Amino acid sequence: MADLLVVGTGLIGTSIGLAVMGSRDVVLSDRDPAAAEIASERGAGRLWDGQESADLVIAAVPPKATAATLLAVARLGIARTFTHVTSVQSPVQAEIETLISQASIVCGGHPVAGSESSGPGAARADLFAGRPWVLCPGAATTPGAVAAVDGLARACGAEPVVMSAPDHDAAMALVSHLPQAVASAVAAQLLGAERVVRLGGGGLRDTTRIAASDPALWREILTLNANAVAPLLRAVAQDLSALSEALAGGPPTGDAAFPPPPPPASSGEVVEELLRRGRAGRALLPVKGGEVGAAFSWVAVALPDRPGRLVAVLASAAEAGVNVEDVRLEHVPGRPRGLAQLAVRTQARAEAVRVLRAAGHDVLASD
Amino acid sequence: MADLLVVGTGLIGTSIGLAVMGSRDVVLSDRDPAAAEIASERGAGRLWDGQESADLVIAAVPPKATAATLLAVARLGIARTFTHVTSVQSPVQAEIETLISQASIVCGGHPVAGSESSGPGAARADLFAGRPWVLCPGAATTPGAVAAVDGLARACGAEPVVMSAPDHDAAMALVSHLPQAVASAVAAQLLGAERVVRLGGGGLRDTTRIAASDPALWREILTLNANAVAPLLRAVAQDLSALSEALAGGPPTGDAAFPPPPPPASSGEVVEELLRRGRAGRALLPVKGGEVGAAFSWVAVALPDRPGRLVAVLASAAEAGVNVEDVRLEHVPGRPRGLAQLAVRTQARAEAVRVLRAAGHDVLASD
Repeated sequence: MADLLVVGTGLIGTSIGLAVMGSRDVVLSDRDPAAAEIASERGAGRLWDGQESADLVIAAVPPKATAATLLAVARLGIARTFTHVTSVQSPVQAEIETLISQASIVCGGHPVAGSESSGPGAARADLFAGRPWVLCPGAATTPGAVAAVDGLARACGAEPVVMSAPDHDAAMALVSHLPQAVASAVAAQLLGAERVVRLGGGGLRDTTRIAASDPALWREILTLNANAVAPLLRAVAQDLSALSEALAGGPPTGDAAFPPPPPPASSGEVVEELLRRGRAGRALLPVKGGEVGAAFSWVAVALPDRPGRLVAVLASAAEAGVNVEDVRLEHVPGRPRGLAQLAVRTQARAEAVRVLRAAGHDVLASD
Repeated sequence: MADLLVVGTGLIGTSIGLAVMGSRDVVLSDRDPAAAEIASERGAGRLWDGQESADLVIAAVPPKATAATLLAVARLGIARTFTHVTSVQSPVQAEIETLISQASIVCGGHPVAGSESSGPGAARADLFAGRPWVLCPGAATTPGAVAAVDGLARACGAEPVVMSAPDHDAAMALVSHLPQAVASAVAAQLLGAERVVRLGGGGLRDTTRIAASDPALWREILTLNANAVAPLLRAVAQDLSALSEALAGGPPTGDAAFPPPPPPASSGEVVEELLRRGRAGRALLPVKGGEVGAAFSWVAVALPDRPGRLVAVLASAAEAGVNVEDVRLEHVPGRPRGLAQLAVRTQARAEAVRVLRAAGHDVLASD
């Protein structure tokens, strides 16, 4: 009897196998045998023989295939508890409660982590480290089923959070599904603008990164969570429409003789009001990188295109007792070299520059 | 006579001073003497005495103050050429041509780089490294003025690109001003959702990062470039509105007896069509990190909260001849340790894991 049967060895299923490797005995299955083999070769688990029983079965398949996948395994009578990983919980939970007589041994789950990449090749053992893993027990779910999923989440390094399925879906509409749709809408405007896209910087890159995600999967997620997503999309569309009208000098009015009674706010006021709301909303996100903030400064070092050069820079710093708190690498497209940014304590910056230059590294002009 | 007079020692002006330190003699001025002093203390240049002449004067002030700032310096008769750094060029160019009789010695410029931070304390010597620096000469601008700005851009490590002011403004509306406004609109929806924002991941963080920018500055930029920005905002608002209607089951119709003649596309089709367009648009962006792609794999190493630990990891790799091609640090909020992701060639991954484990580092479960 295996600890865990993973059905569906895509990005999420394979990453779960990799994350618990060493602590759980995992068997793997996928309707595409090649995908299961890749996952197994990467170390995510053994191939399932179609009969071996398992303590916990996790369906890591798209939302619309989830209930049917669990039903097929439930009929074999080989599993004690079931879970899944869908980004939308309510419709999946309803389908499970309709289809599966043993719904009480199913506890829905959603590891809130992902990547714009997909498939077993993109899986990572640490995909869930420090991330929330939402548990959505149904009305009849047994404490044992909840505990099994809680244990799996912890074994993956995630932090379990229990929520009702509707609360989960409303939250995901806001923090995941809305940004996804909006990133697509912005990136869609780039079509036909090949010549100028290279002028875009980090802002364009960041705001559109997730637009590279799988359209078929996201079509499924957005349509399944339509009730929660549609009002948010409408609200953003209204904000942008109002902004556009303010910038263009007011909405096209059908009857100029009857302007709207309250005098319209100035274009600048409409713009700034949205920007201020956006800034306040953004400020709600936790600071990334813990204490890497005001107490640190960056030192930029040019790197020749020679492997191992970054390591040489960091080794020089280590040798001289300079603590490097963070590293960012920037490759300059079309140039035979990159740039390393080293974060050091601000009071140690001058010393770091001196030490690195003395060791022959190309520290860029700096204070 | 100084090489460069920087008027306005905010993020951009101070970063220019830092970038050319050592190769240019720079004098600094700001209407806030404290800001000029901070910039000077950081090494961006000497304080300007209000009289010393300069080969090139750069106004690094908000767009609406730019022409007046250049006029004030031009009246002193101390400068050979002028430039500025505004994110919107056409209205500034027009104002300069109206106000300044020596408009032929002015060449507009826009270093396309920035940060959601502002002020001289956030300045970085490498802010412009590898970034475009758009030059927008007016009809009468002399070749000498263009050459002066071209030289400054190159001295800052940037890549000069000559464009007309209207072409520049249209490009910036697409790659900078539109993403800025949309990031604000998404982030604005987070207000009142404090409880669930923590469920957001990298997608939410990336799509809203620039919403932290200065609302007053962006109000100025968006209103100055209203003609180019408004149609783009309208187009995105229409896409999102259509998506919302498709998800909500179609637009509210005034007369149900007369549905629109072509049968409406299914909700899923509307969703997927936008997602596909977004993905195609996103694919136009150059790949970041050059060749760090399919040929590389990540190795995750847990780091105790002890400074210098990353360096020890990289030193172990260097010692064993393992080339680390990229590094990402992830801090897990509220946890006393972080995670380092090292990119190594895929075929060298197993060896890297072995070597790092042998050296006593905490490599996370992996293939």
